[in-house]
Amino acid sequence: MIPAKELKRLKSLKQKKYRYRYSQFLIEGWRLIEEAVTSQANVIQAWYHTDRDYPDQVLLDKLDQKQIPHEEVTKNEINILSDTVHNQGIVALVKFPEQKQLTDNSNQNWIYLDNVSDPGNLGTILRTADWFGIRNIGFSHNCVDPYNPKVVRGGMGAHFHISIHTEVDLNDIKAMGHTILAADQSGTSLSKCNASSITKWCLVLGSETHGISEEITPLIDHFVAIPGTGKAESLNVAVAGGILMFLLK
Amino acid sequence: MIPAKELKRLKSLKQKKYRYRYSQFLIEGWRLIEEAVTSQANVIQAWYHTDRDYPDQVLLDKLDQKQIPHEEVTKNEINILSDTVHNQGIVALVKFPEQKQLTDNSNQNWIYLDNVSDPGNLGTILRTADWFGIRNIGFSHNCVDPYNPKVVRGGMGAHFHISIHTEVDLNDIKAMGHTILAADQSGTSLSKCNASSITKWCLVLGSETHGISEEITPLIDHFVAIPGTGKAESLNVAVAGGILMFLLK
Repeated sequence: MIPAKELKRLKSLKQKKYRYRYSQFLIEGWRLIEEAVTSQANVIQAWYHTDRDYPDQVLLDKLDQKQIPHEEVTKNEINILSDTVHNQGIVALVKFPEQKQLTDNSNQNWIYLDNVSDPGNLGTILRTADWFGIRNIGFSHNCVDPYNPKVVRGGMGAHFHISIHTEVDLNDIKAMGHTILAADQSGTSLSKCNASSITKWCLVLGSETHGISEEITPLIDHFVAIPGTGKAESLNVAVAGGILMFLLK
Repeated sequence: MIPAKELKRLKSLKQKKYRYRYSQFLIEGWRLIEEAVTSQANVIQAWYHTDRDYPDQVLLDKLDQKQIPHEEVTKNEINILSDTVHNQGIVALVKFPEQKQLTDNSNQNWIYLDNVSDPGNLGTILRTADWFGIRNIGFSHNCVDPYNPKVVRGGMGAHFHISIHTEVDLNDIKAMGHTILAADQSGTSLSKCNASSITKWCLVLGSETHGISEEITPLIDHFVAIPGTGKAESLNVAVAGGILMFLLK
């Protein structure tokens, strides 16, 4: 049983304010927690309840090996900590990764998220970046929080593979010599930007409703669009980002 | 004011069973409703309440011109019919488009959705298909309903531009001479399938958790993958679909 006071504190991590106060976040699901443990994320503790085919003994053994405390609790306690209605019966507490210096990865490509507000889109963008081996994601100050439970679920483990940089000023990425590309439907197609000659780039994805913010517009070297022939007004930001990451990699 | 009995009937359209009983669905938001009216969708009636900057007089004038009944109602009535917490104060009733014969579009490319279960993904796939000018979408019998409110919102007007075919047997598309491609991470890259020589294709996107179902596997001509270099286990189905549609168009 989780002591009432600790249960309350853990539950508070559903809110951004408390996540940043404690530098901790919750993750859930057997697969995601196994990925966190395997990827050397700083998993502090896990709680689970046994139900149907679970628990997954492989994961419990791994938690043992890594000396990560884990405890069987009630279904109700898991439901309090979980963010989903049909949860898998396991939740873990993870410490925020240490935020690297931007310059530690100055030779690598970046994704920069400017005011992206939908957690589902953000999780999908992280998952896609992870697929294409992009190592760095920068977040503007007004983006949805990368440690939001829905973003973490959508990221499918990306949080444990990619360096996440919050509150990043795009000027600092530009100062490292990156060519700044931004997805914008009024831009030109990527083939016209001579993309293959760009040695290191930062792809900016903007707000679902407002696009790239005025504040950072002067920093953009090329606005890139994905040509369409149909009647739709625009592409979803996660899909547009996926196509551009595919083309750039 | 909407008569209580009609309000109850309209509210029932949130459930698939009643949508198919009446062959009607609800849409919401000024922009989506304007797109429906402009695209010659069969809009039966609209209800709105005035709030903040709304109503949009241009849309109200269009409804007048097209002789579509529209009525100001209470905020509460709109809230009952809307599927979103922060709705825009306008809802419209639309008749299902007539389902075309498959053979009416036998020379055009298709997307076929096999057991796709997340309404957000499905809406995004429809929006992307619309962007790339794909005219036909076929749904397997076990897909989420294309007229589900979340799918309709995510489609951003795609429902009024694309022929939607429900309960489609993939055999019938194959019988029209289409090359059947299926997104699958164990497949080969599209460049190896000699894609440019394919004159008419049908791209199959499968379930988020189970991939392409066994039942239709024998029909697939090429399994196509999107090469990744990172640590992610897979791409989101809407992102994978977007990249493949981009490559095929």
